[in-house]
Amino acid sequence: MTVRSQFFSADEGDAVAVENEMGKHAVLLVCEHASRTLPARYGDLGLSEDVLSSHIAWDPGALAVARLLSAKLDATLIFQRFSRLIYDCNRPPESPSAMPLTSEIYDIPGNRDLSEAERFARTAALYIPFHEAVSDHIERRKVTGKGTVLVTIHSFTPVYHGRVRDVQIGILHDADSRLADAMLKEAGPSFRVERNEPYGPQDGVTHTLRLHAVQHGLLNVMIEVRNDLIADEEGQRDAAEFLSELLRKALATQSH
Amino acid sequence: MTVRSQFFSADEGDAVAVENEMGKHAVLLVCEHASRTLPARYGDLGLSEDVLSSHIAWDPGALAVARLLSAKLDATLIFQRFSRLIYDCNRPPESPSAMPLTSEIYDIPGNRDLSEAERFARTAALYIPFHEAVSDHIERRKVTGKGTVLVTIHSFTPVYHGRVRDVQIGILHDADSRLADAMLKEAGPSFRVERNEPYGPQDGVTHTLRLHAVQHGLLNVMIEVRNDLIADEEGQRDAAEFLSELLRKALATQSH
Repeated sequence: MTVRSQFFSADEGDAVAVENEMGKHAVLLVCEHASRTLPARYGDLGLSEDVLSSHIAWDPGALAVARLLSAKLDATLIFQRFSRLIYDCNRPPESPSAMPLTSEIYDIPGNRDLSEAERFARTAALYIPFHEAVSDHIERRKVTGKGTVLVTIHSFTPVYHGRVRDVQIGILHDADSRLADAMLKEAGPSFRVERNEPYGPQDGVTHTLRLHAVQHGLLNVMIEVRNDLIADEEGQRDAAEFLSELLRKALATQSH
Repeated sequence: MTVRSQFFSADEGDAVAVENEMGKHAVLLVCEHASRTLPARYGDLGLSEDVLSSHIAWDPGALAVARLLSAKLDATLIFQRFSRLIYDCNRPPESPSAMPLTSEIYDIPGNRDLSEAERFARTAALYIPFHEAVSDHIERRKVTGKGTVLVTIHSFTPVYHGRVRDVQIGILHDADSRLADAMLKEAGPSFRVERNEPYGPQDGVTHTLRLHAVQHGLLNVMIEVRNDLIADEEGQRDAAEFLSELLRKALATQSH
């Protein structure tokens, strides 16, 4: 009978999923845009099925790659179970993108004129518990003397506002670039890997990194994979193989 | 070992206090600015004792009046146990006044350049649980067929930016003025009572009303008492006596 339990219907669970909670690796994988699911109360937000299955609702392929990485590294994975169209967990409540009115070229009718009660419900039910779960995980490890390396997994669309993107994998960072620098150094030629592409901190995409890692001195990186490369299992396996090796090599050069 | 429990020291409890939880009256009293206490982690925020005991840290007298009203009406009271200087629970996270840089004529050094991690911690530890408690209380009553009337209790300083205020009691409302109208009609001459003074909805002070009542069709009002009138017990008793009678008379004209 709380705000959170009223928000979700009885059979849809709540906002956060934690997998491989006792994973031994220092890496914590976080996937804010893992899911295209809308909580039942929202219907279709006034959007077509095409739009609801596109990158504006979620990061296609990101969760699959994150799960493969979790298995390869034996690392804990925390992901958001609902679409960023309702609350984008990589944005603070004060950001206009947290509950977006538009995304790329689409208006989102169901996000027009949100009341303060509606904004509160989304913040309380989706954003706060998600980041509390991340924060609690890091704190539990810290108490037992274990450091954490924060790695967030995203995907991006190959064509954005009509423009084709050549970059295949983006290694993004905020003020603390230690892990990103090491990864870029080790990246090799098998993928086209670039720094802070196709987005960077100036686009407000490093909220999760800042919230949990940058200010606490934890190694951290945000990884963006072009979603056409991870549209099927083979592509997901290749990307996960590449990224797990890249993380291993880069982390071997860092103390954490 | 959660965000919330890390935020407070072991002996300082948490954000919300609920008194007379099983009170029979339909009125729910809410006091967002009840306390001048700062969580231990903040020290003095860089402010002098004079400032920390003034109206910029809390609404002096408001909690005392709210408690007397709770007893007189047999109404539940929910109040915030910490100062609005850390988080003003009558403001949403996207409002610059939620974690204010300045208040009246004072800078608040401890609120300068807040990190996203710090904003998250305050929102998660102070704002969200406070309004979840209010929302849960209303919902629990609703499930058993009982309506709720939301009454928030505030006080204001007699001199603001050097200007003396003549109004003694303000009856504030947002889009739903039913209860405020009825109270203004019944107010009589014993206090100088005015509508939407010394603040009104245009000043962003009706967040709590909008969050819990306006959009759900519940009767609601925000009451502002000039704090020189409730600086001692006698004044607090007089104000509570006046307000409890005023609420009774006004509510008798309304269905709820």
